[in-house]
Amino acid sequence: MIDLPSPYLLFLGNATDELAAKTAKALFEWAPEKCLGQISLPECTVKLSLPELSIQRARSMGAASLVIGCTAPGGSIHPSWHPILLDALKEGLHLINGLHEQLASIPILASEAAKTNKQIIDLRQTSTPLPIGKGLKRQGKRLLTVGTDCSIGKMYTSLCLYHALKEAGVKSSFRATGQTGMMIAGSGVAIDAVIADFIAGAAEQLSPGNEPEHWDIIEGQGSIMHPSFSGVSLGLLHGSQPDAIVLCHEPTRTHMRGLSHYPMPSLQECLDLSLSLARITNPEASCLGISVNTSRLNPESRKEVLQQIADETGLLAVDPKLDITPLTERIHSLC
Amino acid sequence: MIDLPSPYLLFLGNATDELAAKTAKALFEWAPEKCLGQISLPECTVKLSLPELSIQRARSMGAASLVIGCTAPGGSIHPSWHPILLDALKEGLHLINGLHEQLASIPILASEAAKTNKQIIDLRQTSTPLPIGKGLKRQGKRLLTVGTDCSIGKMYTSLCLYHALKEAGVKSSFRATGQTGMMIAGSGVAIDAVIADFIAGAAEQLSPGNEPEHWDIIEGQGSIMHPSFSGVSLGLLHGSQPDAIVLCHEPTRTHMRGLSHYPMPSLQECLDLSLSLARITNPEASCLGISVNTSRLNPESRKEVLQQIADETGLLAVDPKLDITPLTERIHSLC
Repeated sequence: MIDLPSPYLLFLGNATDELAAKTAKALFEWAPEKCLGQISLPECTVKLSLPELSIQRARSMGAASLVIGCTAPGGSIHPSWHPILLDALKEGLHLINGLHEQLASIPILASEAAKTNKQIIDLRQTSTPLPIGKGLKRQGKRLLTVGTDCSIGKMYTSLCLYHALKEAGVKSSFRATGQTGMMIAGSGVAIDAVIADFIAGAAEQLSPGNEPEHWDIIEGQGSIMHPSFSGVSLGLLHGSQPDAIVLCHEPTRTHMRGLSHYPMPSLQECLDLSLSLARITNPEASCLGISVNTSRLNPESRKEVLQQIADETGLLAVDPKLDITPLTERIHSLC
Repeated sequence: MIDLPSPYLLFLGNATDELAAKTAKALFEWAPEKCLGQISLPECTVKLSLPELSIQRARSMGAASLVIGCTAPGGSIHPSWHPILLDALKEGLHLINGLHEQLASIPILASEAAKTNKQIIDLRQTSTPLPIGKGLKRQGKRLLTVGTDCSIGKMYTSLCLYHALKEAGVKSSFRATGQTGMMIAGSGVAIDAVIADFIAGAAEQLSPGNEPEHWDIIEGQGSIMHPSFSGVSLGLLHGSQPDAIVLCHEPTRTHMRGLSHYPMPSLQECLDLSLSLARITNPEASCLGISVNTSRLNPESRKEVLQQIADETGLLAVDPKLDITPLTERIHSLC
């Protein structure tokens, strides 16, 4: 279990598109009480509804940690970020990082952290020993969000479902598998950072046996259809043994994230493959519905697109931002 | 590139079944010129056609390295192995290890290696930086062996195919993805030891673009149907972008390796899923045939079982130990 000191100052780096700052955006949306302000480089074009603060100002307002809320290609720490990170340590903030490259491996930061006695918390550290997946049936119910692509609303959908279930009095837990989810939940496993042989084992450990009527809402990662990350997605699917999956989709996307030469897969193909693979470890797995991010559609065409997707797949299609109720009712019917 | 000093003394530990000593067996089969002898603990019941040597005797015969040729559950180094490993270093041998647990992390061995100036070569070190998979089409032909289960003949089939192609004058390379293959080939990547996000990227790096008529014969790992390791298998499948797959099978196995509660999948189901998934990164992927390990069948029923499998799948079914020619001819027809 990792303890993350808050409140946070969110670092947006040189992000020029919303997806590159999705960690900061999600943190502000799901844990606003932890977010004091933002700090960014001049070329950054992303804005949150948070004040832009200097490190000194954030510190004087009580910030405990600077959180890296943006990404750079390949998961690395951009050299242009070093001065701000160094200043943060000098001013007495901890650093929280969910990218692949470890802050602790940057000598100038590591030595400054030692000098000021501040923590560098690299969420993707892979030093914790993990078990090999065993595939044994566990008590309790599990739902996993899967996707037609990366960065398509799996964490968002999971958090909406979790909060709706909590509100309805259903026993449930949000199980985080990515750095942002971990920052929101305060625990979890960065599943894409574990050693390949232990992906399923990590997923099993994340979602242990529970009371029969308890629901684990497990944050999905990547897509079994994504050529870069499919291994992570399949290991997570097999280890989670979901009773239910929800397929997340973004109807305006024309190609897979990061791969302009790969068109988006069809919903039906992704659904069929997901269920065929899920049933290897849970023969009862079913799909409860499609979670559609309609935010890039004209408001007047949203209902129509949801209806089209429902007709095409024969399943519920909802935008969780508009109304998650039909999906939560489906979960109730499985309780 | 890792350079492995030979000849080897093969350490069989406390192996009591053939699969537990498969590394040593395969090394002796495919690189006999490198194997001087074996050394084992009293409870070991596996025997190779190699002399049992003391470390001193092996050293005096010219051995350069002690190779861990056996496995223990979870990929760990059994404490009962420590005295022999320590003696090997003291007598001047290097240590070569393909298990998950790193010999270099055992203080008594690390300090002895430093003292005697001998190398500890942990093949599953994950320190090398790897790229994210890009899914870009590469020149050259690729064949990947896949399996209905783990430890079912994927490396064996790959090596048979590679040698048959070499003999027939076809340009080809054997691409090793496991520790034994690496010991045989002298290079490769332990694909199950990479960070989950980089599985496909590692597979792409292992099998780079080549001459149009060159064949990479890529050693498969695990099975997309195996609940413990499917993530590794899918990442390798997507990163390899095989033009051809060969499905490896063992007809007497009743359940998946290590999972007595999982019956073996059907050949057809495994074939269909493998091709559906392979075609995500190579729409032209096809299955050339089934490689069947018939060694546990009565000799008189072998032909019949191969014919049954051929009828069931509509594909070639061969035992590479008996005759690999029909499969190599299929590859020729694709050249």
